[in-house]
Amino acid sequence: MNGFPCKPESQVTSNDFFYIGLMNAASTANPEGFGVQLADVTAFPALNTQGLTVARIDLAPGGIIPLHVHPRGSEANFILKGKVYFGFTTTTDVLYAKVMKPGVLNIIPRGLVHFAANVGPGKAVIIAVLNSQLPGFANIPTNLFASTPTTPDYILAKNFRVDEKIIAIIKAKFALNASLATGTWKDI
Amino acid sequence: MNGFPCKPESQVTSNDFFYIGLMNAASTANPEGFGVQLADVTAFPALNTQGLTVARIDLAPGGIIPLHVHPRGSEANFILKGKVYFGFTTTTDVLYAKVMKPGVLNIIPRGLVHFAANVGPGKAVIIAVLNSQLPGFANIPTNLFASTPTTPDYILAKNFRVDEKIIAIIKAKFALNASLATGTWKDI
Amino acid sequence: MNGFPCKPESQVTSNDFFYIGLMNAASTANPEGFGVQLADVTAFPALNTQGLTVARIDLAPGGIIPLHVHPRGSEANFILKGKVYFGFTTTTDVLYAKVMKPGVLNIIPRGLVHFAANVGPGKAVIIAVLNSQLPGFANIPTNLFASTPTTPDYILAKNFRVDEKIIAIIKAKFALNASLATGTWKDI
Amino acid sequence: MNGFPCKPESQVTSNDFFYIGLMNAASTANPEGFGVQLADVTAFPALNTQGLTVARIDLAPGGIIPLHVHPRGSEANFILKGKVYFGFTTTTDVLYAKVMKPGVLNIIPRGLVHFAANVGPGKAVIIAVLNSQLPGFANIPTNLFASTPTTPDYILAKNFRVDEKIIAIIKAKFALNASLATGTWKDI
Amino acid sequence: MNGFPCKPESQVTSNDFFYIGLMNAASTANPEGFGVQLADVTAFPALNTQGLTVARIDLAPGGIIPLHVHPRGSEANFILKGKVYFGFTTTTDVLYAKVMKPGVLNIIPRGLVHFAANVGPGKAVIIAVLNSQLPGFANIPTNLFASTPTTPDYILAKNFRVDEKIIAIIKAKFALNASLATGTWKDI
Amino acid sequence: MNGFPCKPESQVTSNDFFYIGLMNAASTANPEGFGVQLADVTAFPALNTQGLTVARIDLAPGGIIPLHVHPRGSEANFILKGKVYFGFTTTTDVLYAKVMKPGVLNIIPRGLVHFAANVGPGKAVIIAVLNSQLPGFANIPTNLFASTPTTPDYILAKNFRVDEKIIAIIKAKFALNASLATGTWKDI
Repeated sequence: MNGFPCKPESQVTSNDFFYIGLMNAASTANPEGFGVQLADVTAFPALNTQGLTVARIDLAPGGIIPLHVHPRGSEANFILKGKVYFGFTTTTDVLYAKVMKPGVLNIIPRGLVHFAANVGPGKAVIIAVLNSQLPGFANIPTNLFASTPTTPDYILAKNFRVDEKIIAIIKAKFALNASLATGTWKDI
Repeated sequence: MNGFPCKPESQVTSNDFFYIGLMNAASTANPEGFGVQLADVTAFPALNTQGLTVARIDLAPGGIIPLHVHPRGSEANFILKGKVYFGFTTTTDVLYAKVMKPGVLNIIPRGLVHFAANVGPGKAVIIAVLNSQLPGFANIPTNLFASTPTTPDYILAKNFRVDEKIIAIIKAKFALNASLATGTWKDI
Repeated sequence: MNGFPCKPESQVTSNDFFYIGLMNAASTANPEGFGVQLADVTAFPALNTQGLTVARIDLAPGGIIPLHVHPRGSEANFILKGKVYFGFTTTTDVLYAKVMKPGVLNIIPRGLVHFAANVGPGKAVIIAVLNSQLPGFANIPTNLFASTPTTPDYILAKNFRVDEKIIAIIKAKFALNASLATGTWKDI
Repeated sequence: MNGFPCKPESQVTSNDFFYIGLMNAASTANPEGFGVQLADVTAFPALNTQGLTVARIDLAPGGIIPLHVHPRGSEANFILKGKVYFGFTTTTDVLYAKVMKPGVLNIIPRGLVHFAANVGPGKAVIIAVLNSQLPGFANIPTNLFASTPTTPDYILAKNFRVDEKIIAIIKAKFALNASLATGTWKDI
Repeated sequence: MNGFPCKPESQVTSNDFFYIGLMNAASTANPEGFGVQLADVTAFPALNTQGLTVARIDLAPGGIIPLHVHPRGSEANFILKGKVYFGFTTTTDVLYAKVMKPGVLNIIPRGLVHFAANVGPGKAVIIAVLNSQLPGFANIPTNLFASTPTTPDYILAKNFRVDEKIIAIIKAKFALNASLATGTWKDI
Repeated sequence: MNGFPCKPESQVTSNDFFYIGLMNAASTANPEGFGVQLADVTAFPALNTQGLTVARIDLAPGGIIPLHVHPRGSEANFILKGKVYFGFTTTTDVLYAKVMKPGVLNIIPRGLVHFAANVGPGKAVIIAVLNSQLPGFANIPTNLFASTPTTPDYILAKNFRVDEKIIAIIKAKFALNASLATGTWKDI
């Protein structure tokens, strides 16, 4: 992508600076029970050069935000609804995690692996904010087990210290569900 | 201020990365009807080096966020409750503004003068996010008319193209209310 | 604006790196007695990617630099001629200000509201430098009272704690003088 | 950690700017067959403020660099010896990978998941360079399956779309080998 | 140096933001006829975090600013007095240079070798501005021929494609004048 | 140059992220005995936005890397082969230098003048890494004595405190060898 060109100044209106795409939940009808509405620069061009992205995340009961990293941003999460177990793991393999209620804020330091799980009885809604106009979302499970082309089984087996059969089992699960849209944050 | 020293790593716990100070509204019992709970690095030290601040803003019916700039950050605002007229003015004196409903997001480009007004019948609640751990809040009305020491009347009069008497009237209003805590975002 | 394209390298000459636009004063025949010659990247393209802007400011006797902020830069000012009262106000409403003579330098921390007033008997000349190729100049009086569209009177009245009539008086002053070019720093 | 204080200038010598810690291979006697000698700012203090880290990575025959991300840096790898299959996966789950011979250079875009495998008959040696003085190394397998405290099995099972028994099998492998130092890049 | 600590906020006064050290010329009684008064963060602590340095340079008739680079900043120069031949050389060995009169501005792109020579009949005065609080000044002639310890003659000879005797001649000139303070910009 | 446009994402392949241009030595048949193979963004476009450059430098016996600065990057050097005397000079004219053997790493702080000399009996090979996609290489000897147009002799003479005849001698050496390609790092 070659940067984000602006429209001519004469065509700019107030509407350009307001975004309604977070008003409604994204579908959570996917294996993770995870829906994302994303206001990064590709969806909301007025973010260009402003260093911010905001996302609305909906989790079905029992849903998760899959393990992931943001390649280009720190993130804070504010819980609007529900009970969410949120955690991240450091470079020395320490897990910092807590159950969050509405109104609680957390911080996920830049580039660390993190996840969330809806641990309440109902839906959960989260506002996520990142300090980049295009922070990216690298989904660990699909990066590892559902890439195109695939990562060789023996490499995954050696990484996870298991037999290649177990790798094949996991890959099959993702292949099986490939027709289901994964509820993830697809950017470029 | 000399940077934000970290606690020893051995004393860090999960609690350090979660912040409950935004759960409850700040008081709006002030001339602006404006309450702010602020999670910048001074309140939530885990934000250190992460380039983010989150604030919860409550507006009483008829309340305003006074005209201000953030010296060190861009800002996005997400409406949680109420009906809020939000606007900013460019360096060429164009006002971009709209009424926002819950779920609507906006962006305030870095360093521009902006304001909000609760234009609904009830309270309004806003989540504001900025891409700095200490973005600052420069309140235009108090910067101009309630500083210590005061900005000379003749300078303000020349700026606003009015008689010094009008300046004196405005200053008196702020002096009168000086004993009322202004509902503002005081940082360093 | 979509960045600042460079001319082909083969067409670059020494002239491209030298700028004569600050040699002569801009007119100060405006309500503020304020003239600016601005060398930012729009006027002096060789500044592209170099992170600097230089301006020459002339003040008629009694003239002012109106209250303003630079959305994207810190500023230092060096007095070439005259006696200038220069001040800025912090986010905690403290005014730091002094009268400056030729040869004196000041620093205006990034994003704070500041102003200057020619307090000597003659003209004043100031060299202003900023650490951005396009720092911007947000003029507080015109941002507030002369924007297009206008900021609603009741919002300004609530901000300044005065009756809307006073707001109308101030707005009228700016409308009256709209045919006079304000001596300001117009960028994009 | 509170920054990286410098020694007094009077005590600085030429030795401070040269580092011999990459001369010898680190041990590869661990489950991954992976040894790292790391010159980041904690090992080589002269890197302070210079935005660079260099590492020497040795792989035993059949060894791997485990799946990981660098939270704070882009990386280029230069092969000194051996035949190495190197790959990274994008945020849209595309795997870019090739076998590299000595003298070949690659680039791993900032924050993406990547891995390498020694696919030649002998040892392999790699020089890795990153544009941060403390880029960090988040090891995906140990982040997920060997953290303290542990990430709950049901969350991992839901992420990888498998039964919790499979999660338990993988965790057990890491627990079993916990007494063996993993050949990883431990920073703070 | 370990950063630039601030004084307690309660002790800050207006004086801290104004600097008089550029009012008078530095001595030009040195081999270059070159005097510098420097307002970087070591001289004017309020520049801390503001990304600006300002210097006043005086040149005696026939004086020069020696060939140098600023390791950490772009520079613009504004001529206050005199006639100055100013030039910089690119990485492809193109010299861009012109004679500047009072009021002319130039830009020296970041990190390039540059010089100036007073080519008028009288003194010259220049205001130099850089976008760093500590840009540094690496004086090419003294870096090469007057360092401690010395750079070996054979290396300099090979660089300049001359006999070592010529190197010895140049070094001797600098040794001879070592008791004369060179009129240079000494930072850390 | 107007930035570095990307190819359409659909045309990106694994080959784009791997670079073979450092596999073979550049010619060292030039006055310095200096050959550079350069992987900056102009040669290896995948470096775009990644903040890294890698170069392979070959030195013939007795060869040198000429005195130079990188206008836009810090540099670390790792010796692959040979015995290399490497040094840089600070802004206070202190030379830090040592003889490096294979496996030794150094750091050249941003923007300082540095050089290297092959002091072993055979060839030397160095991997240089810089934290910019286009760091640049300003060759001091050719910048000074072989620019187009030329820097006036009297200015160089005054800089080096010698007679103009000596300047003419040095310039002649560079003119003489102008038909020989200097083994340097030519970027834009």
